[in-house]
Amino acid sequence: MFLRNAWYVVAWDHELPAGKLLSRRVLDEPVLLYRTPDGRAVALADRCCHRHAPLSLGRLEGDCVRCMYHGLKFDPSGRCVEVPGQSRIPSTAAVRSYPVVERNRWVWLWPGEPNRADAAEIPDTFSLASPDWRMSPGYMKYDANYRLILDNLLDFSHLAFVHPTTLGGTEKLADTRPDVRRLERGVRVERWLLNVAPAPFHSKVHSFAGTVDRWWFYDFLVPGILLMHSGAQPTGTGAPQGRHSGALEFRSCQAVTPACAETSHYFFAVPRNFALDDAQIDRSVMEDISTAFAEDQKIIEAQHRNIDHDQAMLPIGADLALTQFRRIFDSFVESESGSVESDVAVSSK
Amino acid sequence: MFLRNAWYVVAWDHELPAGKLLSRRVLDEPVLLYRTPDGRAVALADRCCHRHAPLSLGRLEGDCVRCMYHGLKFDPSGRCVEVPGQSRIPSTAAVRSYPVVERNRWVWLWPGEPNRADAAEIPDTFSLASPDWRMSPGYMKYDANYRLILDNLLDFSHLAFVHPTTLGGTEKLADTRPDVRRLERGVRVERWLLNVAPAPFHSKVHSFAGTVDRWWFYDFLVPGILLMHSGAQPTGTGAPQGRHSGALEFRSCQAVTPACAETSHYFFAVPRNFALDDAQIDRSVMEDISTAFAEDQKIIEAQHRNIDHDQAMLPIGADLALTQFRRIFDSFVESESGSVESDVAVSSK
Amino acid sequence: MFLRNAWYVVAWDHELPAGKLLSRRVLDEPVLLYRTPDGRAVALADRCCHRHAPLSLGRLEGDCVRCMYHGLKFDPSGRCVEVPGQSRIPSTAAVRSYPVVERNRWVWLWPGEPNRADAAEIPDTFSLASPDWRMSPGYMKYDANYRLILDNLLDFSHLAFVHPTTLGGTEKLADTRPDVRRLERGVRVERWLLNVAPAPFHSKVHSFAGTVDRWWFYDFLVPGILLMHSGAQPTGTGAPQGRHSGALEFRSCQAVTPACAETSHYFFAVPRNFALDDAQIDRSVMEDISTAFAEDQKIIEAQHRNIDHDQAMLPIGADLALTQFRRIFDSFVESESGSVESDVAVSSK
Repeated sequence: MFLRNAWYVVAWDHELPAGKLLSRRVLDEPVLLYRTPDGRAVALADRCCHRHAPLSLGRLEGDCVRCMYHGLKFDPSGRCVEVPGQSRIPSTAAVRSYPVVERNRWVWLWPGEPNRADAAEIPDTFSLASPDWRMSPGYMKYDANYRLILDNLLDFSHLAFVHPTTLGGTEKLADTRPDVRRLERGVRVERWLLNVAPAPFHSKVHSFAGTVDRWWFYDFLVPGILLMHSGAQPTGTGAPQGRHSGALEFRSCQAVTPACAETSHYFFAVPRNFALDDAQIDRSVMEDISTAFAEDQKIIEAQHRNIDHDQAMLPIGADLALTQFRRIFDSFVESESGSVESDVAVSSK
Repeated sequence: MFLRNAWYVVAWDHELPAGKLLSRRVLDEPVLLYRTPDGRAVALADRCCHRHAPLSLGRLEGDCVRCMYHGLKFDPSGRCVEVPGQSRIPSTAAVRSYPVVERNRWVWLWPGEPNRADAAEIPDTFSLASPDWRMSPGYMKYDANYRLILDNLLDFSHLAFVHPTTLGGTEKLADTRPDVRRLERGVRVERWLLNVAPAPFHSKVHSFAGTVDRWWFYDFLVPGILLMHSGAQPTGTGAPQGRHSGALEFRSCQAVTPACAETSHYFFAVPRNFALDDAQIDRSVMEDISTAFAEDQKIIEAQHRNIDHDQAMLPIGADLALTQFRRIFDSFVESESGSVESDVAVSSK
Repeated sequence: MFLRNAWYVVAWDHELPAGKLLSRRVLDEPVLLYRTPDGRAVALADRCCHRHAPLSLGRLEGDCVRCMYHGLKFDPSGRCVEVPGQSRIPSTAAVRSYPVVERNRWVWLWPGEPNRADAAEIPDTFSLASPDWRMSPGYMKYDANYRLILDNLLDFSHLAFVHPTTLGGTEKLADTRPDVRRLERGVRVERWLLNVAPAPFHSKVHSFAGTVDRWWFYDFLVPGILLMHSGAQPTGTGAPQGRHSGALEFRSCQAVTPACAETSHYFFAVPRNFALDDAQIDRSVMEDISTAFAEDQKIIEAQHRNIDHDQAMLPIGADLALTQFRRIFDSFVESESGSVESDVAVSSK
């Protein structure tokens, strides 16, 4: 069961060049994305109301798209404006149109009730578009249920074991516990790791003389958005768990969108505020992030295939944020559907 | 649900050379096809009654086929005539035999009650074998439900959008409406398109000075047989919608046979009555037809994957023949099964 | 439905070198196999109790294995001995451990109730490890239900048709009937074939002057273990169906283990007591066996795909051992589950 009344990231802005028809599965529905000549992003059901052919095999005509099976033409609101060979157009001739907002490089789509779509609820991903931050856009397709990816992002103790040579670097990481606070639409997680060797990932872009203090502060928001301030500074240069001027800093934005129950879209970037003109640093960051996220993908897809839905999972202390977020997520789903989230087998209870 | 009491095309005659065991799925049943030494086509269930191994992995022995798992031997009527190691053959030892008729290059099979099989009901596909007509045999396997292919053949307005550079040539095609009449076992469709540029397909095999009048006259018969007279003539050389002496003419035969609910066999040819000795014209016709039918396949397979069975399709004016034929087809299914055709989601209602 | 309280072969010993984590599906459960530093084979559920990630993607640490998702560590009994970041380990933190016995090159696993596992019940496969016998280890993965493979091994009349150029050599084979006796845990099959040309397989490793008498004596035991003494001797040199000194002899051991209902593991070897130092004979035997077993695989996998579960199979005389063994097998399943074996469609009744 999916949460419908929420904003989901469905594309990077550059995935929608002028003239392109992009088909993307979202919450198990086929969605057509394109841009009107004045640059506005449009999202329609990618299924002609006539005989269900995909509109993404069709033809853009100005603001409209024409189905190239029998020629029905639809405007950006999804209304059919032409049926070849007949002047009267049935009032029911229409495909669904989704509210879409483009902001800070991401295209957000609202699969729920259109009149509840409020762009003010879109999380602030300023670092993706700010001139003070630099990033490369990332995208992966997962063969796994989206909630397993959310779980992964809610417990960074996995950095110790999944990412020893990239994002992690020390198993001490798993011995620390983050501070977790409940937000209205998710959780706020703060984790410090003091007096450790720099992460392999950090060492490639910055030279530290000795040990460092590392931190990860993030909000994790329904339906699956991570906004993170993370970094490292020479040990003791900030007050423990306090300020950190002159540190190595990143402002990552990550978004998980269910394609269906078995596959997911994962959009991400790791903006930095240093070496803004250094393409070599771009490549180094993206290479390490890609390696690390492939490590996640390997274990999460294996987990997805391996789950026994008849056997409960065993909660441990490190699951605190994961468990809190699952409860919050389930309460959102319950309030919109009147029933509890059904893929309980995935949940630790 | 399939219509069982009907003749289906299951092979071109040349697909059954002497000594060959051909396995072909028909109406979701495995069928073994072969030829006896005197040239008669035989169709048996491709599943040994002993342990269900495919007989198509067996060995031809005269008129008979031997299962090469444990050696049971079956005659053309499906009766088991030998069980290694025992003299008594159980009376129930037999596989199903299907009535088969070979006519005009096509092998027709009757999957229904054998005593209802009447070869006189086989449609007249004379142009496939007449010395006055020349053709190349065509076959395609579709990953789509057969009824979607029938739908496609029942509405040629799709030529405008699916085949602009091959069979179509002008979107005016979709603005015309054919005349549709009900037949006992299907529909008769007649469509004229006057005063247009010649189709790309026609231009490659004939030189027209100016615009042409084009026509498509066809019977479309249960369970899925198209018999079509089509062509083009210089504009006005025939009385409008009237005779057409000296025209470019084709007599196409096409047959769709369900392999299962998800895949289909498509047999086709486009016989012509000109340039009977010109192999270059053969190639040109077949190349264009192959390109065009691959265009159909692309959109129909995409449609098959994209259909939402919980969402009704929207009928438009161009669906007239399609809708009539679906009613006729469903009445045939209903009369043999006592219930209405079940894959309603595919149907426009 | 599987028989759980039985010993199954799950690996050759050399498939478990030191330091290796081997994942193998057994009775539709993921099993992790590894060796402790002192060489003892261990089998655990290949699914961490925390979030169900596969332990086979983990890390060996001494006797233990650590899940490399969030770091839980398990000892050879399956007990969790470490949870990163917390001192208290929940009493329920454990994965299933399976009884394992390594004997004569094979690793046997007991998927049923551990307290019923009695190593004395493991069949005697001495020829796999005896200095008087020489063999090469064989393994195949089947895309077929395991019971179809058992059926195949229970009726050697198939040698006549499936293996004419390898193990068979004459269709007379199918005209003979073996002697079949019931054992406590299976059947004893004895078959003689007198006065025939040597099998192609035999001719490659031994030169016979004239015709031979061939025999196959085997016990076939629940859940799917074949122990066979087979061979050939010049016609008449032994009393018919009697002793056979100076014969060409093999002592084959074969074991079928269900991976799931659709796939199976097949372990086999064909030890000989001659040319013990001749590597060329090794290769010749293994090449012929591999060719022959690929012939079995082809027909059995085709049979598996072709079975119509709504249509009963037809028993013939050659099915005697097969039918007896199926009854015995089903009685074992019934006595442990209280219900009759469910995949009846596979059974001849």
